[in-house]
Amino acid sequence: MSLLVTGSIGIDIVETPHGRADDVLGGTAVNFAFAARLFGPVRLVGVVGEDFPPALRDRMTDDRVDLAGLEVRRGSKTFRWHGRYSEDMNTRDTVSVQLNVLAEAGPKIPPAYADSRYVFLGATHPALQQDLISQLKGPALVVADTMDLWIETQRGELERTLGRVGGVVLNDGEARMLTDETNLVTAGKAILKYGPKFVVIKKGEHGAVLVTRDRVAAVPAYYSENVKDPTGAGDSFAGGLMGYLTRAGKHDADTLIAAMVRGTIAASFLIEDFSINRLRALTQAEFDRRLGEYFTMVPRP
Amino acid sequence: MSLLVTGSIGIDIVETPHGRADDVLGGTAVNFAFAARLFGPVRLVGVVGEDFPPALRDRMTDDRVDLAGLEVRRGSKTFRWHGRYSEDMNTRDTVSVQLNVLAEAGPKIPPAYADSRYVFLGATHPALQQDLISQLKGPALVVADTMDLWIETQRGELERTLGRVGGVVLNDGEARMLTDETNLVTAGKAILKYGPKFVVIKKGEHGAVLVTRDRVAAVPAYYSENVKDPTGAGDSFAGGLMGYLTRAGKHDADTLIAAMVRGTIAASFLIEDFSINRLRALTQAEFDRRLGEYFTMVPRP
Repeated sequence: MSLLVTGSIGIDIVETPHGRADDVLGGTAVNFAFAARLFGPVRLVGVVGEDFPPALRDRMTDDRVDLAGLEVRRGSKTFRWHGRYSEDMNTRDTVSVQLNVLAEAGPKIPPAYADSRYVFLGATHPALQQDLISQLKGPALVVADTMDLWIETQRGELERTLGRVGGVVLNDGEARMLTDETNLVTAGKAILKYGPKFVVIKKGEHGAVLVTRDRVAAVPAYYSENVKDPTGAGDSFAGGLMGYLTRAGKHDADTLIAAMVRGTIAASFLIEDFSINRLRALTQAEFDRRLGEYFTMVPRP
Repeated sequence: MSLLVTGSIGIDIVETPHGRADDVLGGTAVNFAFAARLFGPVRLVGVVGEDFPPALRDRMTDDRVDLAGLEVRRGSKTFRWHGRYSEDMNTRDTVSVQLNVLAEAGPKIPPAYADSRYVFLGATHPALQQDLISQLKGPALVVADTMDLWIETQRGELERTLGRVGGVVLNDGEARMLTDETNLVTAGKAILKYGPKFVVIKKGEHGAVLVTRDRVAAVPAYYSENVKDPTGAGDSFAGGLMGYLTRAGKHDADTLIAAMVRGTIAASFLIEDFSINRLRALTQAEFDRRLGEYFTMVPRP
């Protein structure tokens, strides 16, 4: 099975109470890919500018991350983001953001990737998400993320995107904004009416909720005291989730729940260091050990 | 095994988007007891005024709820509370509160109850909690709740209480306030330093976290779309938890996790109607069915 992710690739400056990282690799596609690669190869589709440093490209180089879909656009500049977390890390300010190439035309899916079976669309303009879907040849599952900006300004387009995907991954605030429902199960069911077969609602430290037509599940987050930089946690959660589904080659409710567990474990590692440093260094044995520990942390019959 | 609860007994007015209930039975001891009774008998210790209506006493009458510790104090008035929930039920205003008898001397534990093995102390003045502990003869486990008022104004007394109990049940905001820690596991471990062997941190719709010296667990809440009145959810959670522990006759980590699950199921019923209406009407078969459903909602290895 083949997995493809499209999304932002950025150069980040991140400040947390535990330190500062300057000009490090960031963005949805990156954080997703380095979680998904724990389960198999992943095709990365995204655009950077000609200013993209070779050192950051080196950081993205990995046996399991296929960069044939990474476009380096002449005359354009890479997306940049500078964020600063509060003392308790529960809130963050955007010090500056330069959309640069992200405000231009979106990426194209290379013809050799059009057969991808599992596809994740990062939170870009919903019309672009539809354009990307149109470039695919009969995927088994397309999952989309979205964000407050598109919910507020592109609702019509977003509803069309929702009508063309099999699953949605978004955070609790976005689910409530999209549906005007407070109760997350009610919100999830309201999103299902647009067309997706499942909705995964991310709740940060509180884990995630799965809503399908006939199943609701709650997956707690792995509880860690070691949080250095939460940036990208949600994207690495999605990467672990989609990586697991791709390897399994199915996405029924039981497999989705198991995949959400892998997503929360991947995210629990990501947040232990800046950028993808921890995920890059992660061994299979470390992942498996924490997975085992996770199942001592949740109730069983 | 015998279970005793001390805490408030009140006459409530509750307004939610789903309706209004006037002069209904409320208070920690009541909500706790009608959850705990699902697992066995419970001894209720609390004080009401001579204005306490016979009709409300009738509502408290139950084969499994022992009211020998219910004091009707001459010349005093019963605690009254009037609350109003916001449209999304995530916040509530206290329209009025009359402490009345709760501002006077606390209840006494009847001599026949001094042998209680499992004891839950509702969130009263920590000096009163210590006085109640002193009236017990070698309990197996005393668990205390507390609240923001005592954390802010009676920290010394509260720390003394924490040094004399085996467990603490409190909500996430209180745990953070008590310890100045944002991370709930770090907060839980900080509370353990005062003496308790375990801390259960309640997170409302996000479930609860258990912290012991060598174990952390996350118990998601049962996800319900049917929420009519959240008042007393935390107390019924504690009641289900303590009821289960009492019946089990032990409180190791695995038993605590199982008990937290029973607590969340009890709370999920309580919130489906005003006061203890739903818990009073609940059958064992209904409880067992939802418990089975719960285990389809959480991840398994």
